[in-house]
Amino acid sequence: MKLTVVGLGPGAGEDLTGRARRAIEEADLVVGYTAYIDLIREEFPGKEMASTGMKREVDRCRMAVEAAAAGKNVAVVCSGDAGVYGMAGLIYEVAQDYPPMDIEVVPGITAACGGGAVLGAPLTHDFAVISLSDLLTPWEKIERRLRLAAEADFVLCLYNPRSRSRSDYLQRACDILLQIKSPDTPCGFVRNIGREGERAVILTLGALRDSTEVDMFTTVFIGNSETKVLRGKLVTPRGYLQREG
Amino acid sequence: MKLTVVGLGPGAGEDLTGRARRAIEEADLVVGYTAYIDLIREEFPGKEMASTGMKREVDRCRMAVEAAAAGKNVAVVCSGDAGVYGMAGLIYEVAQDYPPMDIEVVPGITAACGGGAVLGAPLTHDFAVISLSDLLTPWEKIERRLRLAAEADFVLCLYNPRSRSRSDYLQRACDILLQIKSPDTPCGFVRNIGREGERAVILTLGALRDSTEVDMFTTVFIGNSETKVLRGKLVTPRGYLQREG
Repeated sequence: MKLTVVGLGPGAGEDLTGRARRAIEEADLVVGYTAYIDLIREEFPGKEMASTGMKREVDRCRMAVEAAAAGKNVAVVCSGDAGVYGMAGLIYEVAQDYPPMDIEVVPGITAACGGGAVLGAPLTHDFAVISLSDLLTPWEKIERRLRLAAEADFVLCLYNPRSRSRSDYLQRACDILLQIKSPDTPCGFVRNIGREGERAVILTLGALRDSTEVDMFTTVFIGNSETKVLRGKLVTPRGYLQREG
Repeated sequence: MKLTVVGLGPGAGEDLTGRARRAIEEADLVVGYTAYIDLIREEFPGKEMASTGMKREVDRCRMAVEAAAAGKNVAVVCSGDAGVYGMAGLIYEVAQDYPPMDIEVVPGITAACGGGAVLGAPLTHDFAVISLSDLLTPWEKIERRLRLAAEADFVLCLYNPRSRSRSDYLQRACDILLQIKSPDTPCGFVRNIGREGERAVILTLGALRDSTEVDMFTTVFIGNSETKVLRGKLVTPRGYLQREG
């Protein structure tokens, strides 16, 4: 009777940590969103796996908690990190309805770190992570966070920047940022981080606003006032060289 | 002639990804800060390793870039992620003085994700990561970021919260946050994440202000207005259950 919430990293496979791999190997049952189960099915042949579709998060967590309460060793898998917009929080909430059980969270590489590594080193200074999805958060709150984060000169990392039903959200977000930041601010995005068809683009904030390439499988990075492009890589200096003069 | 900047995760060992492990195994030379080299020395016996002390970041990167320029396959190791306050940015900057070379960044579990997993699931909603070290950033800029991040109701993750020479910085940071946030805001900190002597504490923002246990090996988490403590774990709801009513 154990429940482990496991972050797979952006593409599973080589991005899995040793702890994540062991947690899946030791589980009697692995539960996850269909696309993430598909990422790991070949790597763990013969393992019992149960998947549910998008927007079935509560059902999925309840299924996992119930199996653990019934005595199974269950692993719930998430893309990226288990905590950052992952299932760890919901698992703890759902588990409140059941007797206390052993719950462990195994962290994974979140898209901010995975995508940052593909682009170069955009997150070497203070940064903020914001999801543009308003399924669970009022859009006004998202706008307010964008504005304040730009005023604070954070590097910004945007999750869920666009979907079919929210086709202009990235544009609306960029318009808010452009009230405060220069249109020349170096930015980048990575689609399908660590997966087949991975694609990284570096561009200005002005060009990002009008880009049509960003979709729901993309993570977006917006530089702070010191971010620059060095030989095709997006780099935010921490200030070591500048200190030495 | 290849240079790889590798994030080891909080404690190396089981927190290493497959990619990070392979990069170290394939390297002719591994370069890093003494404490991080010590973390991996036993795991990679016979591997040539070179370490330099604290505040020798530029020397360390230059040593690595020169070895790579001379034809070696070099891995630069960082605790946590290679990008988040790590060496990836400085490597790209230093490499500007040399002929173009193949540089790859291998991400690792950053302390925000690693420490979050120990505490529960504090980062399940938008968050900001701020370093309280003013060695490279003016304190006024740090204060401003703290204030705006609190106004934006981000969950906050503080790196480098205190050192010998900055013994009251966490207190000063909390005083700024307390102008905006309730002293009852659930918070937590983790010392020595993933290493010997790991210790996690959950407490209120008011109590965090006066805690003397936080040191330079500690990562601090400050909840947003919805963060709560569930059976001893720090959890920020994403809103799935709340949507279902």
